[in-house]
Amino acid sequence: MEDDISLFDASILEEIDFSKCHGEYKPAISHKNPGSNLRLRPLSSGDFNRGFLKLLTQLTQVGEVSKKQFIERFNSMKASPGGYYILVLENTETEEVIASATLVVEFKFIHNAGARGRVEDVVVSKDYRGKQLGKLLLDCLTLLAPKVGCYKLSLECKDPLVDFYTTFGFSKEAQQNYLVQRFWD
Amino acid sequence: MEDDISLFDASILEEIDFSKCHGEYKPAISHKNPGSNLRLRPLSSGDFNRGFLKLLTQLTQVGEVSKKQFIERFNSMKASPGGYYILVLENTETEEVIASATLVVEFKFIHNAGARGRVEDVVVSKDYRGKQLGKLLLDCLTLLAPKVGCYKLSLECKDPLVDFYTTFGFSKEAQQNYLVQRFWD
Repeated sequence: MEDDISLFDASILEEIDFSKCHGEYKPAISHKNPGSNLRLRPLSSGDFNRGFLKLLTQLTQVGEVSKKQFIERFNSMKASPGGYYILVLENTETEEVIASATLVVEFKFIHNAGARGRVEDVVVSKDYRGKQLGKLLLDCLTLLAPKVGCYKLSLECKDPLVDFYTTFGFSKEAQQNYLVQRFWD
Repeated sequence: MEDDISLFDASILEEIDFSKCHGEYKPAISHKNPGSNLRLRPLSSGDFNRGFLKLLTQLTQVGEVSKKQFIERFNSMKASPGGYYILVLENTETEEVIASATLVVEFKFIHNAGARGRVEDVVVSKDYRGKQLGKLLLDCLTLLAPKVGCYKLSLECKDPLVDFYTTFGFSKEAQQNYLVQRFWD
């Protein structure tokens, strides 16, 4: 039997006060009850075999990542204590990872040696859209960020998603620009 | 005598091909010769005593960070292998840190288990402005990012700095928004 190691301690998800969430849920799902046959939990080292990378191809280019490379990457994240919180939703019947979202925590010296959070790589598998799962993942990350010490939380998104993210407490800031350069795909 | 531990291996700075830099330098300074009495190097655990935090107060709020807190934060960054590249410029005569810039590397599963870089916390002390030092730090980080595996590099900046950063290869991307929420200062 292979090890199935959690990227971070799942107990922190139990401690989230979901009554403070931003989204409205009809029907009323939560991180503890995300829906029929669904379980919300930290990314696990076993998720290579549960289609985690295939799920990410619905977001952007993933390329050919071997199991060895996956485990190396997983371990480098796990070795950064308090740095990476990747949530997944698993269909426990099919044992497939069907949605994911990441909170990356950047350590700072400014702001009392604080930390800032970033929402990254939010994806819900095509067959599972319209079930409030993206909203659920976002709410969990937004509640998790201050809990793990983030004084602010940011994200980048395309125009059509601005309204969606605004409902979670995000907003544009005046005179603030976001610039990028790309070295390769 | 106290330990003076480097945040990352300084030899990687030696390997930068500075002939590929974006900025024009008159007079011709470089990472190896940044100016009279100046030395460019990785942040060191001894920089608490060389005014590193005082320098950061010229950027934003720092608050009261004790030496113990500084060292803890330094160690959490160092424990994240390949995650934090903080450059500083030291006046070797006064033993003061007079400028700094950070490259944060975020590990990914997407893009062949790649990495993306972010430029953070660029600051040059008031008395040292107009000496091309911000440009020098930016060029070093921009050359360092692909070297340490970043497929892209991004930053956030206020309106007046857009032109400055554009000269280093950064640009706005169409339909791309940057959203924030703040939990505390």
